[in-house]
Amino acid sequence: MPEFRQNLATKEWVVFATERARRPEDFTRSRPQVKALPALDPACPFCPGHEDATPPAILTLPTGAAAWDVRVIPNKFPALVPAKDPSCVACASQVGPYLQRAGNGSHEVVIDAPYHNCDLPLLPLEKVEEVLDAYYLRFNALSRDPCTELVLIFRNHGPRAGTSILHPHSQIVASAVVPFRVRNRIYEGQRYFDSYGECVYCAMLAYEQADGTRVILENEHFLAFCPFAASTPYEVWLVPKHHRATFGSVDEDELHDLAHQLRGLLSRLWRLLDDPDYNYVIDTAPQHLAAVPFYHWHLRMLPRLTTPAGFEIGSGIGINVVLPEDAAAALRGACGDAVTPEEAGLP
Amino acid sequence: MPEFRQNLATKEWVVFATERARRPEDFTRSRPQVKALPALDPACPFCPGHEDATPPAILTLPTGAAAWDVRVIPNKFPALVPAKDPSCVACASQVGPYLQRAGNGSHEVVIDAPYHNCDLPLLPLEKVEEVLDAYYLRFNALSRDPCTELVLIFRNHGPRAGTSILHPHSQIVASAVVPFRVRNRIYEGQRYFDSYGECVYCAMLAYEQADGTRVILENEHFLAFCPFAASTPYEVWLVPKHHRATFGSVDEDELHDLAHQLRGLLSRLWRLLDDPDYNYVIDTAPQHLAAVPFYHWHLRMLPRLTTPAGFEIGSGIGINVVLPEDAAAALRGACGDAVTPEEAGLP
Repeated sequence: MPEFRQNLATKEWVVFATERARRPEDFTRSRPQVKALPALDPACPFCPGHEDATPPAILTLPTGAAAWDVRVIPNKFPALVPAKDPSCVACASQVGPYLQRAGNGSHEVVIDAPYHNCDLPLLPLEKVEEVLDAYYLRFNALSRDPCTELVLIFRNHGPRAGTSILHPHSQIVASAVVPFRVRNRIYEGQRYFDSYGECVYCAMLAYEQADGTRVILENEHFLAFCPFAASTPYEVWLVPKHHRATFGSVDEDELHDLAHQLRGLLSRLWRLLDDPDYNYVIDTAPQHLAAVPFYHWHLRMLPRLTTPAGFEIGSGIGINVVLPEDAAAALRGACGDAVTPEEAGLP
Repeated sequence: MPEFRQNLATKEWVVFATERARRPEDFTRSRPQVKALPALDPACPFCPGHEDATPPAILTLPTGAAAWDVRVIPNKFPALVPAKDPSCVACASQVGPYLQRAGNGSHEVVIDAPYHNCDLPLLPLEKVEEVLDAYYLRFNALSRDPCTELVLIFRNHGPRAGTSILHPHSQIVASAVVPFRVRNRIYEGQRYFDSYGECVYCAMLAYEQADGTRVILENEHFLAFCPFAASTPYEVWLVPKHHRATFGSVDEDELHDLAHQLRGLLSRLWRLLDDPDYNYVIDTAPQHLAAVPFYHWHLRMLPRLTTPAGFEIGSGIGINVVLPEDAAAALRGACGDAVTPEEAGLP
């Protein structure tokens, strides 16, 4: 019997069609085998030694070291570019009945590791922390630009997630526009706060922690759980226990715990679903709402195992064939240690 | 220089990143060659002679004929199912802080043609009209069910559009829930009406018709154009000139003109982009708003040529690499006659 569930934070509905349910193996069987990659690819512009093939670095970590672990560069094909005249960044122009404005902002690539074949689940914990440090430093640097309204950090892994570049990398976009989807989350967060006097994410966190059926991992600063109205199979949220509207205000201890959970989650997904394609995004408040009590930043992990089709496009209702309780149980049961080179088929 | 454009009907933004622009050929090169299919596939449950492999038909056209052209059946794996107790269809239950309700509605498949290899662009016009007649008849039959709030008609063509079934088919879902995305379009339509005293779709129609740069096709009852803030390359809207909130109130002449434009558009896409994967959906008002002056049904065609990634997921801002003016010019230049069996490589 299918069941509608409502996302408490956005009021969007999802249909759980359990008659179509599939086991983890069913998602992996249709995927082509990932071939073992070389440590350095002579054709890859992100590999060390090819720094001249990209624009100069904005940031490298560790600071001042001869060899970089993480390298942040401008995207060569940016979706948004800095304003020529920053005073005019908010100016929209009318084209007939329509609004149009310059595509201002910025678009950076975070090269997450020097080795072509060493993705996040294979990295030692301190290297994953360096990736998050780069997110944090660039998030705050971009936020200081008066043209920035929103900084979006995301990672596209694999062709079904919209990337064909194999070298481990993330992206950071700063936008002069606060998009409708973010405004809606803010609006619903505010309404919940007005009705119940608390942050909706804090409420979900407390409920999930006490209930436990959808929890995958917990450490001092974070809870990882499959949301009640997960829009796709194996969707996972990593939610900080300390209420902060924006990612830019996290502290060092939180980044450490986030690195631990992120690598643990990616390793579990890697083992359970055979290195699935995924997107993750850091949902955070826009700049001018950085201190509000009704929004709460979090990391949203979305494996790309099924394809949204006409029903989803027309209605916005997701169809999910795996209950989050089942997804959480399977992820809890998987091993969360770093993936070894042997498991990954590396020499 | 990238450019933001706003969708006047939804207030969603799209980034046009023209530096990443691609020609039509660039989209087709990466697609695997579609092999010529047989007219009848012994393994296909939708082919004539295999009617026992599916649930009994709800409707066949032409009515009373020995051989069907169009056959409507219940979906064997429905996303939504009829309520056991119709009086309880709107009852939601609380699970902790969350809302949940039965997945009530219905889910039908429209088998668009008896021949496995004869998709819409290859069909004679009167057969395409029969498909639209089936949409119309089932839309109105499902709308009469008091549990129905919204009827959604859509077509998924090809694996990138979320289907692996090759036999030409469409789908119709009746839902007891009005989803957030539909409510937002209604809300924005109402706000526009309050501000300007007219339907936002009528305003767009008048502007596009006068401007002409984004128009592909025009006949007595419909205008086909690429919307100003197209969310994907080659997105096209078929908009009826007569203002009606719901698809259920179209007349016969309009269905005839829609069939003509739909086949013309599909033939042009087929030739220009080598039979691309696509979704189309009929955006229509919910049942209880069937006569409002501020909503206007239309058909939205979305070729699936690029993959939405983390930026789109996090922000809801689409990234489009082809300007709608360029897409419209290319589609205008393509031949809109029915695709011939020779062109399709059929015997």
